[in-house]
Amino acid sequence: MKKIIKNGIIVTMNAAGDVWDHGYVMFEDTKILAAGPEEDLEKKLQEFTAQGILKPGETFEEIDAKRAIVIPGLVNTHCHLGMIPFRGLGDDCKDRLRVFLLPMENQAMDAEMASLSTRYAIGELLLSGVTTVLDMYYFEEAVAKVMDEMGIRGIAGETVMEKDSCDSKNADEAIERGIALIEAYKDHPRVSGAITPHGTTTCRPETLKRAYEEDVKAGTVFTLHVAEMDYEMTQLREQYGMTPIEFMEHIGVLGPNTLTAHSIRTTEHDVEILAKHGASVAHCIASNTKAAKGVAPVSLMHKHGISVGFGTDGPASGNTLDLFIQMRMCENFHKNELRDRSAFPAKEVVSMATIEGARALGLGDITGSIEPEKQADLVLVETDSPNMFPVYDPYSALVYSAIASNVRDVYVAGECLVKEKKLVREDFAKIRNDLREKMEQTAFKDMKNLV
Amino acid sequence: MKKIIKNGIIVTMNAAGDVWDHGYVMFEDTKILAAGPEEDLEKKLQEFTAQGILKPGETFEEIDAKRAIVIPGLVNTHCHLGMIPFRGLGDDCKDRLRVFLLPMENQAMDAEMASLSTRYAIGELLLSGVTTVLDMYYFEEAVAKVMDEMGIRGIAGETVMEKDSCDSKNADEAIERGIALIEAYKDHPRVSGAITPHGTTTCRPETLKRAYEEDVKAGTVFTLHVAEMDYEMTQLREQYGMTPIEFMEHIGVLGPNTLTAHSIRTTEHDVEILAKHGASVAHCIASNTKAAKGVAPVSLMHKHGISVGFGTDGPASGNTLDLFIQMRMCENFHKNELRDRSAFPAKEVVSMATIEGARALGLGDITGSIEPEKQADLVLVETDSPNMFPVYDPYSALVYSAIASNVRDVYVAGECLVKEKKLVREDFAKIRNDLREKMEQTAFKDMKNLV
Ligand SMILES: [Zn+2]
Ligand SMILES: [Zn+2]
Repeated sequence: MKKIIKNGIIVTMNAAGDVWDHGYVMFEDTKILAAGPEEDLEKKLQEFTAQGILKPGETFEEIDAKRAIVIPGLVNTHCHLGMIPFRGLGDDCKDRLRVFLLPMENQAMDAEMASLSTRYAIGELLLSGVTTVLDMYYFEEAVAKVMDEMGIRGIAGETVMEKDSCDSKNADEAIERGIALIEAYKDHPRVSGAITPHGTTTCRPETLKRAYEEDVKAGTVFTLHVAEMDYEMTQLREQYGMTPIEFMEHIGVLGPNTLTAHSIRTTEHDVEILAKHGASVAHCIASNTKAAKGVAPVSLMHKHGISVGFGTDGPASGNTLDLFIQMRMCENFHKNELRDRSAFPAKEVVSMATIEGARALGLGDITGSIEPEKQADLVLVETDSPNMFPVYDPYSALVYSAIASNVRDVYVAGECLVKEKKLVREDFAKIRNDLREKMEQTAFKDMKNLV
Repeated sequence: MKKIIKNGIIVTMNAAGDVWDHGYVMFEDTKILAAGPEEDLEKKLQEFTAQGILKPGETFEEIDAKRAIVIPGLVNTHCHLGMIPFRGLGDDCKDRLRVFLLPMENQAMDAEMASLSTRYAIGELLLSGVTTVLDMYYFEEAVAKVMDEMGIRGIAGETVMEKDSCDSKNADEAIERGIALIEAYKDHPRVSGAITPHGTTTCRPETLKRAYEEDVKAGTVFTLHVAEMDYEMTQLREQYGMTPIEFMEHIGVLGPNTLTAHSIRTTEHDVEILAKHGASVAHCIASNTKAAKGVAPVSLMHKHGISVGFGTDGPASGNTLDLFIQMRMCENFHKNELRDRSAFPAKEVVSMATIEGARALGLGDITGSIEPEKQADLVLVETDSPNMFPVYDPYSALVYSAIASNVRDVYVAGECLVKEKKLVREDFAKIRNDLREKMEQTAFKDMKNLV
């Protein structure tokens, strides 16, 4: 049955930048059929009837948006879904990676934990309006399975490192896992696999190259942590006399499939290189600045036409999986860095959270905007909460006023996954209990979780 | 009837820094009687019975916190409650003050608009856990009346400028209004008045001095915009060869009652001066960085023992009236500025949002922490929402994970004003309708508010 959303403020993020103060979105099965201002709906229906798209007497499921802002589903381009148990652990500790994260990962992470955490994280993502996520972590067969079951659009990236990780003895084993994962999901309508090396210095050049070639062959995204860490910058400078981006070009792993995560410490030359190869960037503003690592030069990247999506990073680093916080932080940090209050008009930031993020994941033709033929990945952001009045400009309201809890309904591939702020398919309380019980059976039980 | 909150995580913000993972708070009428870990409750009850505070057989109203984090009410030290109609107007415009704000203020602001907007803003503040607010705007008799009616703790500051404003012809008239306001509320248990000059260059030195003396005489706070604007820095340098803080010392308006708002462009010498006089600072991080004005040196201020509270600034500048966003932005901006991920441990930021804010307003003995004899200004922050799991450290959870919608219940002076995320005394939909209708009768009707 065809569905139609009415009585909404439609923010399309299409190339024309269409916004309809009173608009509709019509969709069927997984795809958008039409969208436009309400006064044009009657004409569109006649047109569809003439074309036989609409049968005589055919009825719709009508969805009253109640003046919500209807946006394309948000895209999270860099996340570690398995890390919910780590959220808030050692937050203000100087060396938390070595003190908290790595030891706990070694002791307590297995396929079941990764799966239960992913289930939790995807629930949290959907409830806050994220319809597409790229994950890079371990046990990604389990992650992909949960993505499939929960209905989100996702890329499950198997992490590759030279040294042993919690799911692979070495890089070769991890790459084999990744290849199998890509193969297993190659015909899935929403979920795909990828091989995602950990970073520029935690993998050998040959490993990076092999992963890149497999990802390109599969038509999936090649992503890794780049230009993020002090030790990374030093090591590549000492060993190659290069920046991480220069090094990536040098070994031949830059192309339109490449998505560099973080990319905080990038020079103008680096940005030119990224642009030349058509690579994209995952901007993790809240995680990066919480870790005191600086602000990536997104303005420069945009000037060079690079697609920059948002990444929340994992819940261990960014704490929240909330794209609204990324949008607001992006505005404040970049305006302030540039000393220009008019920099990054709100529309540019909404674009990063939607269509640019989709492009960065190679899904620009599939999702990220509200247009005919695209997937019906749609989010209704309520405007009747106290923080959402008045609304003179929906972009401003989304970026400067909205918070995650303003997300009311969420559709992925035409299916309603969140209705009135509740998951439709799942019981979130059960997801949480299952994860908590699992944590109690591991080293996490000694960490004194209070809830 | 005495009330007791049980089954909560109590974050007291008292001098000892007590946190009880399973604690209680007992209060009666407006005041806190006792707080402690649950295992000590029985002993405390016996003690109170022996002292006659508890009568034999006396029963309590028991409040189940359901594992919420119970914190002292949040304190907003700098706001312009009358400016809700301006929220989101010309957000990314270079000269929005002159293009949008001033013309609309001249055309559309009157006592009724200020009153309706204040009612809206206080509703929004209460729903997000703010129990104490300092306002500085116009028609402050109307503002104080709404504060009284709605139950919030508030200081209504009448703005003083030399030139004519929407409520006064000149500075003298505004000061007279302020004096009358202070007098009218001098015995009110929650609400007080203040004379709040607009800024260091929009008032003459004599005006600043007179306002300061009246505020000191009344024992209320003397606050104004300081070291915020380019023109302010230039003008005082050219005219006096001084920074705004040096100028304030020079004319004798610094003391323990002084609260400088923004204070972004402060030198180390400025900070020493503020500390020497016992002055406090209202830190408006989200508003300041959105306007690309920079980051005040709060770390230095703390080193000198200055009380720094948070201010949201008005909804025209900061958009949200949400202290959780201030806390999160404060962490990210200051860690990043200092290039130190361990800077500003979460507890320090919660302190700014509570007890330091209270001290900055001269209310440090009244509110800002959970201790016997203080007012029962209490906020319950739910931990059962997706973003609030796990909780290893309640400070971290409050600062890095929580958002405004996690506020479930709010008490001011012992009275429950928010219950299960709804205002108890008021109908928010009516408040919103009344404000919208008023806006439609003014120049705001041409601004195309979509909701
Ligand atoms: Zn990462
Ligand atoms: Zn202000």
